[in-house]
Amino acid sequence: MISETMYELGSRRSSIRELFEHGKRAAAEVGAENVYDFSLGNPSTPPPPALTEAAMAILREEEPCAVHGYTSAQGSAEARRAIADDLNARFGAALTADDLYMTCGAAASLCILLRALTVKPKSRFVVQAPYFPEYKVFTESMGGELAVAPADTVSFDLNLPAIEALITPDTQGVLVNSPNNPSGVIYGEDKLKELAALLSKKAAEFAHPIYLISDEPYREITYGKTVPYLPHLYPDTVIAYSYSKSLSLPGERIGYIAVPKSVTDHDKLYAAVCGAGRSLGYVCAPAFMQRLVARCAAMTSDLEAYRHNRDLLYPSLVAMGYECVSPDGAFYLFVKAPNGDAPAFSEAAKALNILAVPGDDFGCPGYLRLSYCVDHAMILRSLPAFRQLRESFS
Amino acid sequence: MISETMYELGSRRSSIRELFEHGKRAAAEVGAENVYDFSLGNPSTPPPPALTEAAMAILREEEPCAVHGYTSAQGSAEARRAIADDLNARFGAALTADDLYMTCGAAASLCILLRALTVKPKSRFVVQAPYFPEYKVFTESMGGELAVAPADTVSFDLNLPAIEALITPDTQGVLVNSPNNPSGVIYGEDKLKELAALLSKKAAEFAHPIYLISDEPYREITYGKTVPYLPHLYPDTVIAYSYSKSLSLPGERIGYIAVPKSVTDHDKLYAAVCGAGRSLGYVCAPAFMQRLVARCAAMTSDLEAYRHNRDLLYPSLVAMGYECVSPDGAFYLFVKAPNGDAPAFSEAAKALNILAVPGDDFGCPGYLRLSYCVDHAMILRSLPAFRQLRESFS
Repeated sequence: MISETMYELGSRRSSIRELFEHGKRAAAEVGAENVYDFSLGNPSTPPPPALTEAAMAILREEEPCAVHGYTSAQGSAEARRAIADDLNARFGAALTADDLYMTCGAAASLCILLRALTVKPKSRFVVQAPYFPEYKVFTESMGGELAVAPADTVSFDLNLPAIEALITPDTQGVLVNSPNNPSGVIYGEDKLKELAALLSKKAAEFAHPIYLISDEPYREITYGKTVPYLPHLYPDTVIAYSYSKSLSLPGERIGYIAVPKSVTDHDKLYAAVCGAGRSLGYVCAPAFMQRLVARCAAMTSDLEAYRHNRDLLYPSLVAMGYECVSPDGAFYLFVKAPNGDAPAFSEAAKALNILAVPGDDFGCPGYLRLSYCVDHAMILRSLPAFRQLRESFS
Repeated sequence: MISETMYELGSRRSSIRELFEHGKRAAAEVGAENVYDFSLGNPSTPPPPALTEAAMAILREEEPCAVHGYTSAQGSAEARRAIADDLNARFGAALTADDLYMTCGAAASLCILLRALTVKPKSRFVVQAPYFPEYKVFTESMGGELAVAPADTVSFDLNLPAIEALITPDTQGVLVNSPNNPSGVIYGEDKLKELAALLSKKAAEFAHPIYLISDEPYREITYGKTVPYLPHLYPDTVIAYSYSKSLSLPGERIGYIAVPKSVTDHDKLYAAVCGAGRSLGYVCAPAFMQRLVARCAAMTSDLEAYRHNRDLLYPSLVAMGYECVSPDGAFYLFVKAPNGDAPAFSEAAKALNILAVPGDDFGCPGYLRLSYCVDHAMILRSLPAFRQLRESFS
């Protein structure tokens, strides 16, 4: 009399969790300094000091019942206005507070959007591999299905023929995540325009909108290449955002959904987002964090720390003979198993206390994901182990 | 291509929301001091000063990446241990950290439990009217159905024959909320023992557990009568809790689920709770608030303010001729429509700028709910309007 589906989801340990437990055991045996944990996407750079100062000021100066009280379900007007102002200034967007809905982070943003857009059993959502594994959990638990386009393992760019082949009359949306977790690739404007043309064509063919769901938690972590603002390229774009990475607040569960005015049936979709949030028990996004976002929407943490890490780890690995696409953004490297033997690679890495998530979970077997949102000194210490690992496959 | 169900949920304004908008218009016309808003359950007493001090200390002294970082999905060990210690000390419970799962507040606690316990379309959950209206939204959105036992409008106590009549082989749980929103009644130990006996009998008859889901956000707001610790009376009890009222943190979305060791299939249900949280996009409960709860689990706000309000409003209304059950706890009065004409009563109250939620939403027509978590002076100012309202029905 307990849901088997929920039991499976809760008891089947994710490979990330397995690695975490392995890491704790290894640290006890060989010392924490000899374990190289590249498994987690937990920011290693702190929130901006001005955010902590703002938090102290709110606690010191503002009325506690108001600070910690309910906001309206869609979020405080102040937070939504601040976010609209920030996006309008940075991208020439034309958002108002009424286009924004505050959420408990990106996972909540995605679940709410998927629920609002799931209209029948097996409403379909299409994603390009490699993709964040929880997309599948969220899509299925909201009643839809996730169709996965195989990865283009040369460029890790969008594979438009593969996406097109998966778009059926039941397709409600296409999910994109750029900068991408786990590849670090940023999809370029030309390719995104082709995607927009494809979706417009399919929407016309099936006589209903196909929404582009842009999951953007890594938008601000880039190393030169621009992340296009998708509503400019495709009007039926909705955005799922989180401040987990840009403000280093992953545990605080604070983000938003943007439904730009260009979206077909804007008001109806926005209302459905409100309804989906309500139906999932999201009464409002955490109120104190909403106040912080209202003050800090235009700030970021010191994201250069990730560039510094990338500029050490990526060339070092390539020089050792690893194959890996150069990351344009985010804080992940997606490294190919030498000789193509992924299970052996994963086991050998673990034996050398290099902890990294196998690519299978991301819909792209044969790879390991390295999260380099870590202490720079740990990367330096890890390099001999990476060399030894590579040489063991020569 | 947008979910009609979600659209309906998001666009059908709740009567509480309608009242809120009416109140704003009325305040603009007649002045805020002449509007008597008893519609909202937003605590009017601030969090304990020691909580604000603890928040400042955490920001000042602790490492920001750790403060705002992900916790494990079930919540930080520190918060769960502190809660277990508090419940063990107060109720002689035998909880460990592994029986607790931190949530984004009571609504999340309920949705997660309902999802973990919904095993087929129309898995049934039974509740006694009057009940918190969102129970129906949550039950249905998790795939189950809510069966409502009619209110006992004499005592507002549990109506066991009515509950028994609704318990079918598909019944997975019974929801209780005591102190009750909206009646303020605390269910007594004798009646709860009878409920426990009934559920044990039905569980044996149908050869599966029937879980008692105890929704306890008002547990600490009492005026003399004891709130029994239900796992002592019925082993298959699970608890949904929120710090919204006891620590005046409603906007922060912080609470927990307790699955005591006495529960049938404890480990499986706990795992299903973890799975349900994951499936709904609840990555972890807000991290900073978890740290605060770890320090402040045993504290409460100055809840005497609510007693002070009750001791003014309840006898005043009764002296004017209103019928209303005396509240044992929480911060609500459930007032009967004079002459039984509820719509006229509601409209007449609104015309006098007394804002209160009609009982229809709580499964008990013919009543108005007054939330007295308000400024004491507003209650004093409102009394002539209540007198005028009562006299208009004489």
